[in-house]
Amino acid sequence: MKAEIISIGTELLLGEIINTNASYLAGQLPLLGIDLYWVTQVGDNQARLVEALRRAWGRSDLILTSGGLGPTEDDITREAIAEMLGEELRVDPTLEREMSGFFARYQVEMPLSNIKQATLIPSAQPITNPRGTAPGWWVEREGHIIISLPGPPRESQRMWEMGVLPRLRQIPSGAIILSRTIKTFGLPEAAVNEKVSHLLSSTNPTLAIYAKPDSIQLRLCAKAQSREEAEGMLAKGESSVRAILEDYIWGSDEDILEAIVGDLLASKGLSLAVMESCTGGLLAATLTDIPGSSKYFKGGLVAYSREMISAFGVDAELIAQHGVLSPEVAGAMAKIARLRLEADIGVGITGVAGPDDIEGKPPGTVYIGIEGEKSPRLFSGHHPGDRPQVKRRATTAALFELKKALLTL
Amino acid sequence: MKAEIISIGTELLLGEIINTNASYLAGQLPLLGIDLYWVTQVGDNQARLVEALRRAWGRSDLILTSGGLGPTEDDITREAIAEMLGEELRVDPTLEREMSGFFARYQVEMPLSNIKQATLIPSAQPITNPRGTAPGWWVEREGHIIISLPGPPRESQRMWEMGVLPRLRQIPSGAIILSRTIKTFGLPEAAVNEKVSHLLSSTNPTLAIYAKPDSIQLRLCAKAQSREEAEGMLAKGESSVRAILEDYIWGSDEDILEAIVGDLLASKGLSLAVMESCTGGLLAATLTDIPGSSKYFKGGLVAYSREMISAFGVDAELIAQHGVLSPEVAGAMAKIARLRLEADIGVGITGVAGPDDIEGKPPGTVYIGIEGEKSPRLFSGHHPGDRPQVKRRATTAALFELKKALLTL
Repeated sequence: MKAEIISIGTELLLGEIINTNASYLAGQLPLLGIDLYWVTQVGDNQARLVEALRRAWGRSDLILTSGGLGPTEDDITREAIAEMLGEELRVDPTLEREMSGFFARYQVEMPLSNIKQATLIPSAQPITNPRGTAPGWWVEREGHIIISLPGPPRESQRMWEMGVLPRLRQIPSGAIILSRTIKTFGLPEAAVNEKVSHLLSSTNPTLAIYAKPDSIQLRLCAKAQSREEAEGMLAKGESSVRAILEDYIWGSDEDILEAIVGDLLASKGLSLAVMESCTGGLLAATLTDIPGSSKYFKGGLVAYSREMISAFGVDAELIAQHGVLSPEVAGAMAKIARLRLEADIGVGITGVAGPDDIEGKPPGTVYIGIEGEKSPRLFSGHHPGDRPQVKRRATTAALFELKKALLTL
Repeated sequence: MKAEIISIGTELLLGEIINTNASYLAGQLPLLGIDLYWVTQVGDNQARLVEALRRAWGRSDLILTSGGLGPTEDDITREAIAEMLGEELRVDPTLEREMSGFFARYQVEMPLSNIKQATLIPSAQPITNPRGTAPGWWVEREGHIIISLPGPPRESQRMWEMGVLPRLRQIPSGAIILSRTIKTFGLPEAAVNEKVSHLLSSTNPTLAIYAKPDSIQLRLCAKAQSREEAEGMLAKGESSVRAILEDYIWGSDEDILEAIVGDLLASKGLSLAVMESCTGGLLAATLTDIPGSSKYFKGGLVAYSREMISAFGVDAELIAQHGVLSPEVAGAMAKIARLRLEADIGVGITGVAGPDDIEGKPPGTVYIGIEGEKSPRLFSGHHPGDRPQVKRRATTAALFELKKALLTL
């Protein structure tokens, strides 16, 4: 089944609101085995909406419209569907009764303009709106379905769950689509692409690559007749990807790196402290985004100058010998965090956030130290980007190495 | 001038990401007097993208595409534009040199697949991308313009500002639309709405209210025949808003609160240090997002437990008397930050990030202390939201109060 979404509203075209409804609906369709090929946004203009509906009618089996069901003159979705299908709008007595009941409950007189929300065309059945005055439309004709929902997400999402989803599930689509996301760190997008290039031509499951602030993600998408079959295809695809990228993979689907690190610390009963220079507190701030992080995170030191790094206790001679930008100083910072904050594990980060070089080293140069009871681990890396991006990637690198270190403890 | 946006990416059609790029671009066009009539989302499918481009070419003067400029095989925007226009893709020697330079700078070998990012067609000129490897395209032919930008917002928005906006401004359009954004903190959206409700019915300039993570913003939008006229209308509207909301306004347009604070510190020759509990390092991380912040920001202490707050030097008796969650402890934290990190000004934050109550106080309770040479200032607040929201709002509250304090020094 081929689907298409039409989002209606001039405020979308003015950039005043973000089209979250389209994303919500788009995310629902794969679970029904329905393929979405097009999303179109149009303003509150009847001629252009009719044009969009006509094109959708010609190329799609299922058309979802969002918005334009309000009581005002610029709400034109009902009128446009009626015009496109050549059908007549009529006030439905049941809907009218329900609507005056709604207003009576709030002891408000029904504004006259609301009557248009009680109209239907012969091919349309109403979809109940438990959270507002605008009923939706379920239109069926000539093998096509049009489903019209109002704009406010709290109304339309409830209507989708209660009135649309159960009905769409009755329609055999012939296929189930499942996806799995695999999250990596440490290789640039193009290098990931090259390593898995022989898998990218697969059509089922498909494999695609996306760059995110904290990872390069690979998404497998499998289409099959049953959930079991689709899951089997995903599992096979995933093991092919894992065999190639094993060292760079830190999680999948909804995994969050700082939560994985937190779970490992909690399960091993270990505490953590950090000392940061170039990341300026972002590692501590990221760790503490996780509820319950106070159980394992002791705290941190942010030293934003050579003097402050030294004042917190890094040996001035060590700095003189290796420079502030060195794995040795990162290791010493990790040790100071661990000892001064009485934690089991310390992490130190020093580097160049940019935009200027420091000690002759370019922005993006980052050194990380991780120290537990035993051996200190030191890492060097280059993370291209501007200042916030270098900070974010250095933080992710530290969490990534910390996760690997925790797995060996 | 009629414009159209085409957003490219299967992840949009699967509902995995929200189309923020289209909103951003849509919000930019009114300022140029350009009317946007259509936004279309298509997947990474060359045939469907060519179809969308062909339709846009037939009905729009300006086509903006977003996404599909990456180095991988499923990035097909360049190929689709070339196919639609019947032009040939060729590697541009200058772009190729720049790209290998980019990789050389980070001592990484350029993956072969990146070469496609250095291609052009005869009608295309490159748009420089200062934050990534994908240059944009500016295509001009037969009175039409196609502007292609990459998907990641931090790349495309900078390219829009630097490479696209100045060029589009050269093209005369009938009317001038100017806008001004006024940024406030400390009043909830509904309260701002109530205070300015009599201004909301104005049609020129219009006034709209938006809730953002760090502020409630009011946007004035004026349409006129000349820039002077539009500017006069904005100035009048702005002074009406300022008269009502003066105490809550911290900036306008592109202002960033942490940059304003940084400029004030730098111009007064003052240094800053912080001690954080509930914000977990986010205040330090936010301050250090500003280039040059090492000139005034000394560093910070993150104490994520009562014991750690005490270990850093807050008097245990003070904690016992008032509780960790108290203005008194926030003040003591500010003092410790100032003295231990040898700064002119110290800021302390303590509070409840959530999700659980602490000391019988609900999530969102936040106390802030600011101490300079003279009088300490103490603030109490309640900031609703989940954990990351509470941390963000507490950080903004601290910056907001710090800005006000700095203005009186």
